[in-house]
Amino acid sequence: MSNVEYQPKAPAEPVEIHGDLNRWCANAIRTLAIDTVQRANSGHPGLPLGTADIAYVVWDRFLHHNPADPTWPNRDRFVLSAGHGSAMLYALLHLTGYDLPLDELLNFRQWGSRTPGHPEYGLTPGVEATTGPLGQGFGTGVGMALAEAMLAARFNRPGFPIVDHYTYVLVSDGDLMEGVASEAASLAGHLGLGKLIYLYDDNHISIEGNTDITFTEDVAARFRAYGWHVQKVDGYDQPAIAEAIRLAQTETTRPSLIVARTHIGYGSPHKQDSAAAHGSPLGEEEVRLTKEALGWPGDARFWVPDAVLEHFRQALDRGAKEQEAWGALLERYRRSFPDLAEAWDAAMSGELPAGWDENLPTFDAGGKPLATRKASEAALNAAAPYLPTLVGGSADLSVSNNTFLKGYADVNTGAFAGRNLHFGVREHSMGAVLNGMALHGGLRPYGGTFLVFSDYMRPSIRLAAMMHLPVIYVFTHDSIGLGEDGPTHQPVEHLAALRAIPNLWVVRPAEANETVLAWKIALERKEGPTALILTRQGLPILDADAVHGAARGGYVLADAEGGTADVILLASGSEVSLAMEAREALAGQGIAARVVSMISWKLFDAQPKTYRDAVLPPTVTARLAIEAGVSQGWHKYVGDGGDVISIERFGASAPYRTVMRKYGFSVENVVRHVR
Amino acid sequence: MSNVEYQPKAPAEPVEIHGDLNRWCANAIRTLAIDTVQRANSGHPGLPLGTADIAYVVWDRFLHHNPADPTWPNRDRFVLSAGHGSAMLYALLHLTGYDLPLDELLNFRQWGSRTPGHPEYGLTPGVEATTGPLGQGFGTGVGMALAEAMLAARFNRPGFPIVDHYTYVLVSDGDLMEGVASEAASLAGHLGLGKLIYLYDDNHISIEGNTDITFTEDVAARFRAYGWHVQKVDGYDQPAIAEAIRLAQTETTRPSLIVARTHIGYGSPHKQDSAAAHGSPLGEEEVRLTKEALGWPGDARFWVPDAVLEHFRQALDRGAKEQEAWGALLERYRRSFPDLAEAWDAAMSGELPAGWDENLPTFDAGGKPLATRKASEAALNAAAPYLPTLVGGSADLSVSNNTFLKGYADVNTGAFAGRNLHFGVREHSMGAVLNGMALHGGLRPYGGTFLVFSDYMRPSIRLAAMMHLPVIYVFTHDSIGLGEDGPTHQPVEHLAALRAIPNLWVVRPAEANETVLAWKIALERKEGPTALILTRQGLPILDADAVHGAARGGYVLADAEGGTADVILLASGSEVSLAMEAREALAGQGIAARVVSMISWKLFDAQPKTYRDAVLPPTVTARLAIEAGVSQGWHKYVGDGGDVISIERFGASAPYRTVMRKYGFSVENVVRHVR
Repeated sequence: MSNVEYQPKAPAEPVEIHGDLNRWCANAIRTLAIDTVQRANSGHPGLPLGTADIAYVVWDRFLHHNPADPTWPNRDRFVLSAGHGSAMLYALLHLTGYDLPLDELLNFRQWGSRTPGHPEYGLTPGVEATTGPLGQGFGTGVGMALAEAMLAARFNRPGFPIVDHYTYVLVSDGDLMEGVASEAASLAGHLGLGKLIYLYDDNHISIEGNTDITFTEDVAARFRAYGWHVQKVDGYDQPAIAEAIRLAQTETTRPSLIVARTHIGYGSPHKQDSAAAHGSPLGEEEVRLTKEALGWPGDARFWVPDAVLEHFRQALDRGAKEQEAWGALLERYRRSFPDLAEAWDAAMSGELPAGWDENLPTFDAGGKPLATRKASEAALNAAAPYLPTLVGGSADLSVSNNTFLKGYADVNTGAFAGRNLHFGVREHSMGAVLNGMALHGGLRPYGGTFLVFSDYMRPSIRLAAMMHLPVIYVFTHDSIGLGEDGPTHQPVEHLAALRAIPNLWVVRPAEANETVLAWKIALERKEGPTALILTRQGLPILDADAVHGAARGGYVLADAEGGTADVILLASGSEVSLAMEAREALAGQGIAARVVSMISWKLFDAQPKTYRDAVLPPTVTARLAIEAGVSQGWHKYVGDGGDVISIERFGASAPYRTVMRKYGFSVENVVRHVR
Repeated sequence: MSNVEYQPKAPAEPVEIHGDLNRWCANAIRTLAIDTVQRANSGHPGLPLGTADIAYVVWDRFLHHNPADPTWPNRDRFVLSAGHGSAMLYALLHLTGYDLPLDELLNFRQWGSRTPGHPEYGLTPGVEATTGPLGQGFGTGVGMALAEAMLAARFNRPGFPIVDHYTYVLVSDGDLMEGVASEAASLAGHLGLGKLIYLYDDNHISIEGNTDITFTEDVAARFRAYGWHVQKVDGYDQPAIAEAIRLAQTETTRPSLIVARTHIGYGSPHKQDSAAAHGSPLGEEEVRLTKEALGWPGDARFWVPDAVLEHFRQALDRGAKEQEAWGALLERYRRSFPDLAEAWDAAMSGELPAGWDENLPTFDAGGKPLATRKASEAALNAAAPYLPTLVGGSADLSVSNNTFLKGYADVNTGAFAGRNLHFGVREHSMGAVLNGMALHGGLRPYGGTFLVFSDYMRPSIRLAAMMHLPVIYVFTHDSIGLGEDGPTHQPVEHLAALRAIPNLWVVRPAEANETVLAWKIALERKEGPTALILTRQGLPILDADAVHGAARGGYVLADAEGGTADVILLASGSEVSLAMEAREALAGQGIAARVVSMISWKLFDAQPKTYRDAVLPPTVTARLAIEAGVSQGWHKYVGDGGDVISIERFGASAPYRTVMRKYGFSVENVVRHVR
């Protein structure tokens, strides 16, 4: 529980702001942050104390931003990958004049505040990304810088650098230990993202103690091996930090890592350099002692000297002028390059242009069976010319995921005008990079891999859902139907696991025409990510007119003969065609079956009850769900009278028709279950 | 579909085995593998062709193993992390005399064979780990080498190296791009695992094309930065490969990476050095041309020259002698160190010693509320003295996960006699390392992190479940009940996502005494992993006599007054105490409620129907499940007449009591739902 007695208080004695104002400014960040944590009686004082000088130098000397307009497109991005240091970020936002009044700091980590335990995008103005799960901010920053480079390549013209900003990311030991960060670092080094500047809080302490116990690699050498420009500085030498950042800026073809030697809990007489400073309030007495050690009045709380606040708030005036200058540049650009400017506006709006879907394919029913991954490729490529913001790729499986945009260039080292990305075998960082690109704005990113490997990127998918980012995942090879590659590659639990993520739409089309609708659903979505779940194997094509209902998540694909169903067969994806075959077989035995294609549970659940009851009439309790995955969750739809043909074990290596049959996905078995 | 016409065939013309027999042996691996793939009409010929010389040198010159006894404890381990090259591994196993006859190669990737698409542990003799999902084998190898080092430190005595073997792992570009491998490499370098020897198939090709498109880092420099010993060799110069391995063996305090420059599809006239060689059969004509290019009779199929087979099969005699010598050493060891030998036998048996649980704690009902993570710590530490094989740690959260074994030493660089591991902020590699330790045998590993970060390690958890490894996960901070850290740290979908994994037992105890039983369940399990789901916050303690039923997964914790329930309240973990409070409140309103603690769905589902019906009588359809997570899956238990108090969105940052109440986890809300 927070300690509401812990109130703002000016120092009893007047305080002379002597010496270097910059030092006072850094200490204002420190003291605000530790007061914030102390009042909440919860939070992380160690990072703000340790890195305030670094953060101050970035924000004071380098960061181009306008606190009055956190949406200015050409602002520099600052991401606190070590999100547990949120109190420092809130202090910076408050001090520089964002709409984050002191009251919000006083409500740190309380219900309804804009100052949650870890920074949350969309909740707090100036917070560029939701961070906290380590490594995510690292990868997200790479995505932001990649988006910047891609937009710059598209829109900038000589004398018109309308996209021209840096991405600064503050990272911790924990970030650098996480695999997702390693992947992203390798990718950023490969691409040569020169405007990426990472500041590493090298404090030698992690939660379990000194990094000696587990983290003794040569981080600088590792990053050089990735192709990064690496410098080392004293984390308290502000001029040296500034010089390092300046040098990092002059390095335009390599990302930069600035290794700043710091001390966790800097200034705390009893907790500096110890894990105890990391994640618990210092305690009132230690807060007082820390302030005094920093040359701050020990009795002051949430106190910011006028000169300090005045200095910080210059960011407002400076930011307004910078944004205004940029606005003027954009106006000249509009006159010189009206078509480009129109494209720019369209890109930044995030809206789909009218008529974008006019060329989407329709597949003829009864045509040759088509894998939904192939139908997806056709839909994607039909939409691409209308949607220049649509960019993406795969984690080294584009030929299998069918994610390539034909006729468009690759994005590669120093060549950012293309639309096809190569993420390498790096699913997790692909997820984080997609998040960064979506956060940046101006691009609509997608990424593909096998469904089974969605597990590798779940932490990033979760954050996309939490941040309401309209990222699109293309997950192919969606069941035991992938065949010979066997159980390591056959997803069984992944539909359930993805459906469980709040705000992620999981869309598993039954065939080619539903796949086109699935892409429409995904592309028209603005408030969150969509996972398209696609087959490796060919599936019979349904009449395009029969599948319109897919947009509602679940619909009657084929009603019972005569309209009164004895049984309802529910299925998704490749099992829908099995249900259709079974319906025929049942009809031959005098059993009238309705087939419901459940392309997306979340979409169906969002329909009015009248609609849901029309699709699944409560009077028809004989229901059978068929899905080549675990049954978890299907009982909600089949009810007490229903049953599920599912898979409750891992798959097996064999040709897919064999595996499907052996696992019970045959007309005979469906008929037997119904009977 | 496989091509059964593609039959074994000796060459039409007699073939003289001239020149270097070693070259013929390597080519026998190549030709067997490509024939195997060609007959299956499915699989990956590129890796076997590319790396056969490397594999041959390891298996012929270095690997201590006994094909007649794949369970010999002191054998060297060989892991094919690039599991898609399974055809090569099967060729090696067949050639060296494992119980894998040619018929199995002819049934590659077919239903019921022991030659699945990717190697599967437990299915094929000599396969040390299930691999295929990239990076996993890399991390698993680190776990094996760590187990070797720990067992050596415990059991070896001067002159008695009863644990003394190498772990060889063949890794690909894809493995090295995966974050899990980076994490594991950093950990292995830190620990100084000198008997780990990795061979890197550096072929410059990934599925999307040349590695130039995405993977241009300096791998050798990166591994040096991790503290590895790195060498480079020509992947076709057998003496140079042998010399590099010999040097790697002399390097005893650093793991070794041997970067072998190779050519994917080596020997294939039209596919060498192209992605086309990776994952599709070469085609009959190209198989023929490849054989001829290798100096092999083009018309021969599945043909092994007698001299070659004879050479390979020497492994049987050599292995028998080596194992015999080791057995003799062990006998002398038994005489010299009878106590240690007894401990060795006990460790290798994998059995729990009698009476191991005699000192497990019992907590007094009505005592001070206790977090289940704290009860877990007590149970773990009470069991530890009885279970010397029990070793583990946390991904830098041991102070929060309460996973530390008090009074036992840390495992650290060059110091392997302890029991407490520090994985660093590397959840994913922790999962892979735990798998490797369990695969090695002789240790019973556990690992902890926050439940929300189970997402980071899912691919490894999945493999533990698939491999039937009795790994234990300690997942704490299990719901919005963790409070202030907010939604990034509050699991909501994770119970559902973990429950969806086949063969993973998810056990979420309601309080301290159930937690002790949860540890019993986990420790007594042999055939798969168990995830313990524990709270951060304190929970009321129940009477130890009331919770015995927990062993059955779900049980009547408190029956309705008078025995006839108007309603059944189902809950797990921290929500059980809420259900108990609600039961009281309902009784006050004349509503008789039964409370069922559902500690583990999978365990409950495995009970006989009579038991399940006794716990959840079909006649009582008024049921309410209460769980602080998504409802997915609960409808199976509450049925059509039931309801679920769940969380279908992300959490929020605030003190936990506030978050719980705001999300509907209050007595009032439960009572309202029941009414």
